[in-house]
Amino acid sequence: AQVQAAPVDLSGYTRVKQELVAPPFAPKHEQVATGGPKIVEVTMDTTERLMVVDEDTGASIWALTYNGSVPGPLIICHEGDMVELTLRNPHDSMMEHNIDFHAATGALGGGGLTHVYPGEETVLRWKATKAGCFTYHCAPGGAMIPYHVCHGMNGAVMVLPREGLKDAEGNPLRYDSIAYIGEQDYYLPMDEMGDYKTYTAAGDDYADSLEAMRTLTPTHSVFNGAVGALTGENALRAKVGETVLMIHNQANRDSRPHLIGGHGDYVWETSFTTPPLKDVETWFVRGGTAMAAMYTFEQPGVYAYVNHNLIEATLLGAAAHFVVEGDWDNELMEQVVAPRSFSA
Amino acid sequence: AQVQAAPVDLSGYTRVKQELVAPPFAPKHEQVATGGPKIVEVTMDTTERLMVVDEDTGASIWALTYNGSVPGPLIICHEGDMVELTLRNPHDSMMEHNIDFHAATGALGGGGLTHVYPGEETVLRWKATKAGCFTYHCAPGGAMIPYHVCHGMNGAVMVLPREGLKDAEGNPLRYDSIAYIGEQDYYLPMDEMGDYKTYTAAGDDYADSLEAMRTLTPTHSVFNGAVGALTGENALRAKVGETVLMIHNQANRDSRPHLIGGHGDYVWETSFTTPPLKDVETWFVRGGTAMAAMYTFEQPGVYAYVNHNLIEATLLGAAAHFVVEGDWDNELMEQVVAPRSFSA
Amino acid sequence: AQVQAAPVDLSGYTRVKQELVAPPFAPKHEQVATGGPKIVEVTMDTTERLMVVDEDTGASIWALTYNGSVPGPLIICHEGDMVELTLRNPHDSMMEHNIDFHAATGALGGGGLTHVYPGEETVLRWKATKAGCFTYHCAPGGAMIPYHVCHGMNGAVMVLPREGLKDAEGNPLRYDSIAYIGEQDYYLPMDEMGDYKTYTAAGDDYADSLEAMRTLTPTHSVFNGAVGALTGENALRAKVGETVLMIHNQANRDSRPHLIGGHGDYVWETSFTTPPLKDVETWFVRGGTAMAAMYTFEQPGVYAYVNHNLIEATLLGAAAHFVVEGDWDNELMEQVVAPRSFSA
Ligand SMILES: [Cu+2]
Ligand SMILES: [Cu+2]
Ligand SMILES: [Cu+2]
Ligand SMILES: [Cu+2]
Ligand SMILES: [Cu+2]
Ligand SMILES: [Cu+2]
Ligand SMILES: [Mg+2]
Ligand SMILES: [Mg+2]
Ligand SMILES: [Mg+2]
Ligand SMILES: [Mg+2]
Ligand SMILES: [Mg+2]
Ligand SMILES: [Mg+2]
Ligand SMILES: [Mg+2]
Ligand SMILES: [Mg+2]
Ligand SMILES: [Mg+2]
Repeated sequence: AQVQAAPVDLSGYTRVKQELVAPPFAPKHEQVATGGPKIVEVTMDTTERLMVVDEDTGASIWALTYNGSVPGPLIICHEGDMVELTLRNPHDSMMEHNIDFHAATGALGGGGLTHVYPGEETVLRWKATKAGCFTYHCAPGGAMIPYHVCHGMNGAVMVLPREGLKDAEGNPLRYDSIAYIGEQDYYLPMDEMGDYKTYTAAGDDYADSLEAMRTLTPTHSVFNGAVGALTGENALRAKVGETVLMIHNQANRDSRPHLIGGHGDYVWETSFTTPPLKDVETWFVRGGTAMAAMYTFEQPGVYAYVNHNLIEATLLGAAAHFVVEGDWDNELMEQVVAPRSFSA
Repeated sequence: AQVQAAPVDLSGYTRVKQELVAPPFAPKHEQVATGGPKIVEVTMDTTERLMVVDEDTGASIWALTYNGSVPGPLIICHEGDMVELTLRNPHDSMMEHNIDFHAATGALGGGGLTHVYPGEETVLRWKATKAGCFTYHCAPGGAMIPYHVCHGMNGAVMVLPREGLKDAEGNPLRYDSIAYIGEQDYYLPMDEMGDYKTYTAAGDDYADSLEAMRTLTPTHSVFNGAVGALTGENALRAKVGETVLMIHNQANRDSRPHLIGGHGDYVWETSFTTPPLKDVETWFVRGGTAMAAMYTFEQPGVYAYVNHNLIEATLLGAAAHFVVEGDWDNELMEQVVAPRSFSA
Repeated sequence: AQVQAAPVDLSGYTRVKQELVAPPFAPKHEQVATGGPKIVEVTMDTTERLMVVDEDTGASIWALTYNGSVPGPLIICHEGDMVELTLRNPHDSMMEHNIDFHAATGALGGGGLTHVYPGEETVLRWKATKAGCFTYHCAPGGAMIPYHVCHGMNGAVMVLPREGLKDAEGNPLRYDSIAYIGEQDYYLPMDEMGDYKTYTAAGDDYADSLEAMRTLTPTHSVFNGAVGALTGENALRAKVGETVLMIHNQANRDSRPHLIGGHGDYVWETSFTTPPLKDVETWFVRGGTAMAAMYTFEQPGVYAYVNHNLIEATLLGAAAHFVVEGDWDNELMEQVVAPRSFSA
């Protein structure tokens, strides 16, 4: 059917190239679209690499990635734009890869048209007809689907409304920065001693991984690929009065992000065409979803951003930090009496 | 109290008989109600039968069912109608059964009034006062409740608004067909070798099942009773331009359906009196819920409908297929360059 | 920064003392605020106590609590009020505690300002700027966070809109009573025989608990601290025509409450500033959330309120009862034919 399909007239579109950047950062973009619809050109390589998941235990994985990062890079366009992806599988890869865009329509989200073996490339173009944040991920077929997804091969596209984000009453909402956070559930095989196994090449852990995945219980659930990837020197940064748009991608498993000490002023759990939830303590990420939460910082200090299954946050790794500068506001909170001894 | 309750005047209601059909199909019904309120008469038998869950492994279960299918048949009425159920427990059954309608009010959803032993029948009438999709299930009491529910004994009632479905602005929404999908989590006992155990009669797996259920980790999560029940020859069918209402029932455990290559244009996760979510990539089924998602197909091809915990979709069985006919639209998606070798 | 912060002018606030009460009850409060903003003074002790979790098995835990109950007491204020908490750690405690209010802004929700060792007290004041139900919990840092939370150290604050609750159209909604239910996931260590281990003091189960928590599979999920805490003599009570506001707190793990035989007429899953969902069969509690569901009883009888993962409800303990008095309504439901034998 596809061979005989009528050619499409692209004359109304302007071509632009989007330079993808590593998470937690976002590519340069407009919040409100100027001009007519665009064809946004992006390129991604399906890179396989050995990654340390947890430096404390030495747990590692032969990660399957887009552009070398877990999650893959954030792509941003506007509703009515087209995304044109060049997908390349490096010559030294071990495995077949492809890409399924939840934002796209038809052919398994593009998965059916983009299978590339090592040394192959393909180009797919699709139109962004729905506004929201959407997961993309590798989906080679069968059990290879969760295997690739749970080895890091997923990321997000944000399709903004042409006029930018709005609240339920239609008032514009703008952000100062984006924090793009991918939560990755890993199911790392262990030996009889309870030590994480190591492998010599991508794909070698396939049988063991299937067994581990079948428990539905991850050994790790981490933000941006590894325990502590967004803390310490790599903490996210903001200032009091600034508004951050937190984009959370979880391609496989439910999550429930919470910003300790802060809130979601506006939360889009499903799409940008559904009115945002307001004043949310903990939002919900349906497994297989990217979503967005907006918050304006009101106090300085360190905020932990966690999966509020607190076992997953502290034992499995799902924690990031925001470091926020500014002046403390005693009206919002005050330590009236510092901890002191009291008489029984 | 019930014995002394005032008799109800049913003179304003018209009696109609609804012929129930096996899933994934829906009984004949009107989307917009014509005439006054109805008493919708339905009949269900509590049939116990040995079912193969997975042909590949031979895993089987003595399923407990309504009318022989997992899920039980879909019942459809309109808000303000009454449902009058004749429930019969066949003479050759091993177990007591009953029915709890989430759509009903009082007496544990009818569970308290419908306990039938083998060879017994009962008739329950209840009024549909809330519009939405609602689970029904067997609930004999105590640990028998999850035992029966996790052996297949659940289904859905759809209570339509009398004027049919509407979007958030009040515009009518109509569908061309219904795909009624029940997701069933099974907890099949295994022997020491990891092989699924077999049993000679319904109920014989009770103690083993309780142990397996306590892990909260299903061995299978399947659509319409068995792995592959809605793929291949039994795939769902549609045409480009047609609108399908996907009704998802999960009586026990959360799920997150996703239509690969498509979307939920309108999604009612809770009720029809709450405005639908729009443009959803992956919707959420609270465990113990039936819900609905509406989509108009825009491209031909095969769409997989999955629980987007991809481990559950591919290793546990939660996948169905839609086969959609029509013309491909290169504007929505085009394979600009088919996979080809590239130079390093 | 905090030391140098400008002093706050509290002259516009009236001080009131709120006497906290044990769950499932709510403190005295106004639904619609009268007068100007208040400083609501509350006191909580971080009490450690040995609790029986399940009388049938003898399973017990050295619970970590606020004021001796699991969950901690419900605090109620209005948007724009301040909460001023005196937090005391008794001299005979074994452990450090603190408190993180999801309703508060900054300093990890107050967690960073309230670390009290045994024999210490502290006073924290924070302003309620968001209307909704919010979890509070102990968060001493690292793995101690889920350890304390999963030993019972969590509860809820309800921040009402000053004008009280409203439906999506702005009409006032009032309740006759509150049922405050905390769902607690416990991960009780077992010995090799599968018997629950016992410990001689709070904290002694730390290493074992971490191992149990890592499975992400609770051994118990109970309402108000123990199996059966809200059934039998301790069942909740209401009358036909009365409206109950069910507040559900789950500080760590997702839940899906369902009122068997009833509904959620209005459900606020996230906040009171997001319009309520209507006519909900089963609502969703994001782990790390308190939320509210409102229902007006229409029939007498016993209603079970459960986590509708029915395995968790019946095998893990997540069930409570409402006993409702009044007259049965045969229009809503009628047992037309009581169970009787039928001919094959
Ligand atoms: Cu791949
Ligand atoms: Cu997907
Ligand atoms: Cu049954
Ligand atoms: Cu139920
Ligand atoms: Cu504590
Ligand atoms: Cu918290
Ligand atoms: Mg649109
Ligand atoms: Mg999304
Ligand atoms: Mg393939
Ligand atoms: Mg109604
Ligand atoms: Mg429903
Ligand atoms: Mg019984
Ligand atoms: Mg506000
Ligand atoms: Mg809340
Ligand atoms: Mg500390």
